[in-house]
Amino acid sequence: MARRNWLAMAAEEAARRILARSGDPPVRIVLPTGVAVEPRGAQPRFTLSIRTWRALAAMLIDPESGFAENYASGAAEVDGPLAGFCDEIYRCCPWPRSGRGVAGLLSRYLDWTQSRSVRGAKANIHRHYDLGNEFYRLWLDEEMLYTCAFFPREDATLEEAQQAKMERVARKLALQQDERVAEAGCGWGAFALYIARHYGCRVRAFNISEEQIAWARRRARELGLEGRVEFVLDDYRNITGSYDVFASIGMLEHVGKDHYRELGEVIRRTIGDRGRGLLHFIGRSSPAPLSAWIRKRIFPGAYAPALSEMLPLLEAGDYRVADVENLRSHYARTLRCWRERFEAAGPQVRRMFSEEFARAWKLYLAGSEAAFHSGSLQLYQVLFAGPRCTRALWTREGEQQAQLRAAGGA
Amino acid sequence: MARRNWLAMAAEEAARRILARSGDPPVRIVLPTGVAVEPRGAQPRFTLSIRTWRALAAMLIDPESGFAENYASGAAEVDGPLAGFCDEIYRCCPWPRSGRGVAGLLSRYLDWTQSRSVRGAKANIHRHYDLGNEFYRLWLDEEMLYTCAFFPREDATLEEAQQAKMERVARKLALQQDERVAEAGCGWGAFALYIARHYGCRVRAFNISEEQIAWARRRARELGLEGRVEFVLDDYRNITGSYDVFASIGMLEHVGKDHYRELGEVIRRTIGDRGRGLLHFIGRSSPAPLSAWIRKRIFPGAYAPALSEMLPLLEAGDYRVADVENLRSHYARTLRCWRERFEAAGPQVRRMFSEEFARAWKLYLAGSEAAFHSGSLQLYQVLFAGPRCTRALWTREGEQQAQLRAAGGA
Repeated sequence: MARRNWLAMAAEEAARRILARSGDPPVRIVLPTGVAVEPRGAQPRFTLSIRTWRALAAMLIDPESGFAENYASGAAEVDGPLAGFCDEIYRCCPWPRSGRGVAGLLSRYLDWTQSRSVRGAKANIHRHYDLGNEFYRLWLDEEMLYTCAFFPREDATLEEAQQAKMERVARKLALQQDERVAEAGCGWGAFALYIARHYGCRVRAFNISEEQIAWARRRARELGLEGRVEFVLDDYRNITGSYDVFASIGMLEHVGKDHYRELGEVIRRTIGDRGRGLLHFIGRSSPAPLSAWIRKRIFPGAYAPALSEMLPLLEAGDYRVADVENLRSHYARTLRCWRERFEAAGPQVRRMFSEEFARAWKLYLAGSEAAFHSGSLQLYQVLFAGPRCTRALWTREGEQQAQLRAAGGA
Repeated sequence: MARRNWLAMAAEEAARRILARSGDPPVRIVLPTGVAVEPRGAQPRFTLSIRTWRALAAMLIDPESGFAENYASGAAEVDGPLAGFCDEIYRCCPWPRSGRGVAGLLSRYLDWTQSRSVRGAKANIHRHYDLGNEFYRLWLDEEMLYTCAFFPREDATLEEAQQAKMERVARKLALQQDERVAEAGCGWGAFALYIARHYGCRVRAFNISEEQIAWARRRARELGLEGRVEFVLDDYRNITGSYDVFASIGMLEHVGKDHYRELGEVIRRTIGDRGRGLLHFIGRSSPAPLSAWIRKRIFPGAYAPALSEMLPLLEAGDYRVADVENLRSHYARTLRCWRERFEAAGPQVRRMFSEEFARAWKLYLAGSEAAFHSGSLQLYQVLFAGPRCTRALWTREGEQQAQLRAAGGA
């Protein structure tokens, strides 16, 4: 047997450490030397090729960010479906691990630099949501919903599932004609327009993404809904007026733990103790920071809370939680739809941005799909009502609603 | 005008203070002098007669406990339906108020003396649940379920609603033939027997009430289910063995905040990261101690947590919350059924115990009905699954289950 040199032996040891720190997934690592390191125990289901020494060093220091950065640049490559690969990693490492070593330092550095103040939030949101409406049109549904859909049937299309999600939220809230609704973080405005059109609500919808608000205002004009829906380019902390309902679909992730109290105060100020509301957000099964790479490259300042972290913002106003639904499997499905469309639009994305951007976003979509599929992330809808709210809230397929009415209130 | 004496004037002032501290409910107070003090603003809907100076003083010092103690003794009387009276009080005072003055001292004193240690819990549970099976048979359903029922239709009987509740919990948990279930706090054993009979589960059910366990064991023999259900007279902290499912219906209220961590450890020890479970319990919309009078006279050591207080016990094991349902209107309805049966059994209860006992328990049932009806108390069912659980959990009328299966996991 030929005597291997020191560098080759060190590289193999590094690969074994990377696998061990990732919970020993069934992954074969092919090193820059061309040598393959097999996983312990299990048969390999995926092959990860690490093409440069620098990439290997980065993954040894911080497996997650190291892999992601180098996948984006092409210095790391996965043989086989990327979402399946990520799923395998999440299943081997189901417990959130962070706060230690270089990964922990990076995490704390991001936490410190990506402020969620009014000014910081503007910069964070601008970086993600103002990449251009043309870009998002390539892979979202026609009405540009960029949050978890609800698939009422196995063969529902993304378009149908996004409509079903809006209908589901509207029914949970038991919206009525002419009710005043405040929406915090309205994206491209689809939900605000939906409830104005189908439920006759009067909506003020807030968002700090300029591109999204411009799009939403144009849609409102096209649909002749300008009289019912006002799109306001402003921070949720500046919501004024009084409302019957507070809704927020996919904004809490951007609020940050240190601002939940402020959000709670905004809710109290807008709907008081007679109103009701719904928060739809990406959460966790236990407190942990979001992937540092995601915060560095994709969602600056984002945080996915455990229920116990976000519920005090409602409890401070004595809001009663009527219902919590976990739609994580629906989000995995939604993300699969987005990723498939995104991959089909690969050439356009590369033209608009770069190969590296396209690979980073493919990883973000595949990794998110895997995170929801494996249960590393959750999608919660929390329905709540003020202490003096008299509206019966819909929860379980109508059956419950009738029951609640009969028994006198939500 | 005749000059009123000092005592009469002081009594009227006391009545006005009692009303103000209770949020100015539409209640007329008739004093020991015979003088009536009208409520501010609203027309009176109820008349509260305070018959002794001592009762008036007690209510001035602590309106809630003062009223309850004196209602039980007959020194205070309410003209009109008691549950409606309590409902009115809760609606005028929707925010939990405590921790101040004499009421706060009493609350802290009870907290300190009514320990929830293994030994303390035994004493607490004995005081309530060992009052005699004959007593509870007078007003519970035939199978002796002493927790919130689920009314599938408006005209469902209590018996039907209790069966529907057990079926609902079993379906949420997606129980299968031969699965091992640990039940903590099994009451008279109805749920353990139900899932053994209808789902073929193998159940070990724990309880520290001797009277209840004796009853449950006899029922198991009568039904020929001794081979499938074992009733164990022991504390939840001593549950041994490994199980697929952990269920607890109406025990968390007795665990106490200071022992949630222990309960979380018991869950992890029994179902690990592959199991699933359900906690059904009385909760609050925001953290506050339970009524001091209830703890003093009815449920020693009880505490109804806000969701944010109890969820960390699941989060510590990275259990994923699949679903939270708030059934408070169903509990109001359940309590109404119990109270009506209890009132009909008044003569027997007075013979078994005393007039004062019967009045105290009538107040406990009517007050609880009002607390759930007005939303001062909540009834939560929290469904959860371990990070490696592969069972699809039923949440929304089967629709969700099919969806979850399609998307790959709970």
